[in-house]
Amino acid sequence: MTALEQLTQKQKRIHSLESIAGLLGWDQQTLLPEESSDQRQDQIATMASAIHEARTDSEIGGLLSKLESQTPAPDTKNPADDVGIILRDARTDYDRCTKLPAAWVEQHARLCSEAYHAWAEARKNNDFASYAPYIQRHLDLAKEEAEHLGWGDRPYDLMIDFHDPGVDAATIDSLFSELKTGLAPVLKQILDSPTKARTDIFKGFPVAEQKTFLEEVTASLGFNYKRGRIDISLHPFCSGNGADTRMTTRFDVDNPLDSLFSSIHETGHGMYEQGLPLDSLHNALGKAAGMGAHESQSRLWENQVCRSKAFWKHYEPKFRSAFPTQLEGISSDDLYLAINAVSRNPIRVDSDEVTYNLHIIIRFEIEKKLFAEELQVSELPDYWNAQYKELLGIEPKDDAEGVLQDVHWSGGSFGYFPSYCLGNMLAAQLWYSAADQLPSLEEDLAKGEFENLLNWLRENVHQHGARYHLLELSQKATGQALSPKSLIRYLKDRYLPLYA
Amino acid sequence: MTALEQLTQKQKRIHSLESIAGLLGWDQQTLLPEESSDQRQDQIATMASAIHEARTDSEIGGLLSKLESQTPAPDTKNPADDVGIILRDARTDYDRCTKLPAAWVEQHARLCSEAYHAWAEARKNNDFASYAPYIQRHLDLAKEEAEHLGWGDRPYDLMIDFHDPGVDAATIDSLFSELKTGLAPVLKQILDSPTKARTDIFKGFPVAEQKTFLEEVTASLGFNYKRGRIDISLHPFCSGNGADTRMTTRFDVDNPLDSLFSSIHETGHGMYEQGLPLDSLHNALGKAAGMGAHESQSRLWENQVCRSKAFWKHYEPKFRSAFPTQLEGISSDDLYLAINAVSRNPIRVDSDEVTYNLHIIIRFEIEKKLFAEELQVSELPDYWNAQYKELLGIEPKDDAEGVLQDVHWSGGSFGYFPSYCLGNMLAAQLWYSAADQLPSLEEDLAKGEFENLLNWLRENVHQHGARYHLLELSQKATGQALSPKSLIRYLKDRYLPLYA
Repeated sequence: MTALEQLTQKQKRIHSLESIAGLLGWDQQTLLPEESSDQRQDQIATMASAIHEARTDSEIGGLLSKLESQTPAPDTKNPADDVGIILRDARTDYDRCTKLPAAWVEQHARLCSEAYHAWAEARKNNDFASYAPYIQRHLDLAKEEAEHLGWGDRPYDLMIDFHDPGVDAATIDSLFSELKTGLAPVLKQILDSPTKARTDIFKGFPVAEQKTFLEEVTASLGFNYKRGRIDISLHPFCSGNGADTRMTTRFDVDNPLDSLFSSIHETGHGMYEQGLPLDSLHNALGKAAGMGAHESQSRLWENQVCRSKAFWKHYEPKFRSAFPTQLEGISSDDLYLAINAVSRNPIRVDSDEVTYNLHIIIRFEIEKKLFAEELQVSELPDYWNAQYKELLGIEPKDDAEGVLQDVHWSGGSFGYFPSYCLGNMLAAQLWYSAADQLPSLEEDLAKGEFENLLNWLRENVHQHGARYHLLELSQKATGQALSPKSLIRYLKDRYLPLYA
Repeated sequence: MTALEQLTQKQKRIHSLESIAGLLGWDQQTLLPEESSDQRQDQIATMASAIHEARTDSEIGGLLSKLESQTPAPDTKNPADDVGIILRDARTDYDRCTKLPAAWVEQHARLCSEAYHAWAEARKNNDFASYAPYIQRHLDLAKEEAEHLGWGDRPYDLMIDFHDPGVDAATIDSLFSELKTGLAPVLKQILDSPTKARTDIFKGFPVAEQKTFLEEVTASLGFNYKRGRIDISLHPFCSGNGADTRMTTRFDVDNPLDSLFSSIHETGHGMYEQGLPLDSLHNALGKAAGMGAHESQSRLWENQVCRSKAFWKHYEPKFRSAFPTQLEGISSDDLYLAINAVSRNPIRVDSDEVTYNLHIIIRFEIEKKLFAEELQVSELPDYWNAQYKELLGIEPKDDAEGVLQDVHWSGGSFGYFPSYCLGNMLAAQLWYSAADQLPSLEEDLAKGEFENLLNWLRENVHQHGARYHLLELSQKATGQALSPKSLIRYLKDRYLPLYA
């Protein structure tokens, strides 16, 4: 076997182990009997240690060195060919796994577990002070991590790089400040408008019919149910990979739009996975380009496509025939407005696609200042509340509704939030590029036909795997650098006519 | 850490890996999307190799030698204490894993896969000759296996020992010939009786209501749904372990008794698993005593308990209230007779609990003769048909309905069939012992109360794990050696009054 074949064999084994661990996690959140989690914790720990062992296998290091030093040397900085792409990713993964001392890994794992419980308690008791030391310890560990990985002077950039390789805080800063400025007048007009969406008009939608309807919608979008499923979990998510994609939703008889749009969102993630090259799931050619790219796919289908007038032109009659009595007194205008409701909401996960971006910008500013030591952890609640007042015009009633709402920091997941908003930007940019190149797009949607759009995304985004990082992907797929301009344009196009 | 603690750690890891592999198998048969089996095959192979590596870890060999040679030496032949029990089982497992050369393991794995496909094809095409060479190769490999494991002169005994440790062909021979003699007049009376059960009287039982009913029944028997589930698969099975027990059933709107009794059968397996000591699932103290013991539990609940008059005294009204219209024209007598239908059926898995034993006896005789070279593989179809004619009075219409009906031999699973019948014997024996010691048993059943019986089984069977092998367990739990007498007595008690 050549060195590359040997490396491939090892990568396949790592991928296989990771996919098994993924199934354990999926099962835990969908089906696991309530008292069986003790065994599941053991199983997850067993797989984690097997994966760690496989990823840090010193033979991988030897193979990488051998492959990197061959003549001509592959360019892994700006790789031009498949092998260069594969090696760049494999090297990053190997170094990140092997350069962290066991003591750090152990401390981090323990802290994650302790901080999660501290966060859950603090949120329950509205007691930020009890949770603050855990955030601080995570910050300290993140900085140590950056030291170990050779990013000592740029710890927050490393955190961002974990989620969106090739993106840094300065880039995000510039994108977000343009977005913030552009969003302000749009949001003002919407919130000042006498038009108010009502989302409390939906009552008594039976779960079985909701399930049938959303399966029909998501299958017609292009989710391949022969290689995937949708089940029920507390929070919707998409796991697995393109070979076996497991997404989830949740049902509320009085909120059918929640499960419908959640499942469409997860379908966007799922179709990205299903569009990655199936024979390369074990290396960078078959991996997603990052969190932002992933989010661009879920958002594009959820928002640009499925909240559009054209989409509902086709689906409103079907929705009404699935729920004839429940929708009886609800006009088409009210339905469409409910689908595109915008409101001031202190909770990120309950917010709409206009205000969502502001929730993210606030979190990014906070993380940036924390890492720059311009903000102390103890100052977080006051800073959070002031920002919400300024940007969203709301004051959380307490910290549980404010700074304590997100789980992310308890797991040391800094640099994760920005991806959501970067995804929104890319989604809008892809949307207008696709529309330019697919003259029948609007018409397709109005006929319930999504194949052209999906094929366009397959060709311009999915097939590339992690060949291009987010910023390169934007350039490659849309011909333009990533920017908030399309997002602002889209939000104006969609929302200003509604909230005139 | 002591040597025993180190061994325990390794056994826990093996158990964890095996339980993960078990979940992959369960998911494959219940939920896996139809085109995702390619990845699942990879995952299963990954886990198989991880398990093999863990079980053949040479450190286990070192630890076992160390523990076996300590002073005083533990008696692992007839162990009196927990450590002896654990070591006996661990030694057997380690030797069986390590003594087989890699070439044998590889050949066996390849043959299993090829023979499975050959069997499926042969059954489809009613073409025994094309499958015969695979059975022969499995026989040859089984004999080689016996050589490697030091059972060279007793290969069939080894096959039996894999399923029921401590049992050998001579013992089974003697038990089965007594059973065959005792069964003949019972079966004759039933089949000669003018009373004929009708099983085609059940029509249009909705699946949702069937599911609700069987979940109520199985929960009331004592299956712990907080540590278990029931889902749907093509063939019912019970997998997982007491920490997370996954059983399955199947539904047919025109055959509600099939899913009900299948799920009760699997509940018997599940409750045995759930009754094993939860803190010892990784060693012999928390493992089942063998296949026969396992089958005794499923059969006891399915047959002795749930086909009884007393059981239906309580459940008939509930069954009727779940399916009022479907059961309208069906009398109590007809219902009870259908539950206890006996007929000549060429197919083992479709047969009743009376004739089932004869199906097994035929297979045991064949296996015994194959290993003794008193029968050639090519002679199997004729021998099979002659035996069916003699013992059951039926002639299979072709080999697909005859010698090709079972998958077992394609996997080299010789010595497996007898366990079913040994389980029937033990079930009946346990039943009469429990009845002797629980004077209110009949009354309990008639009230839908099963706790006393389950507790009796917990105490007399489940809690012992694999401490006692089948024959010892029979002695310990019932005060008597394993014998067909109770089974014959039970079949007479149950069936002769019905088919007078």
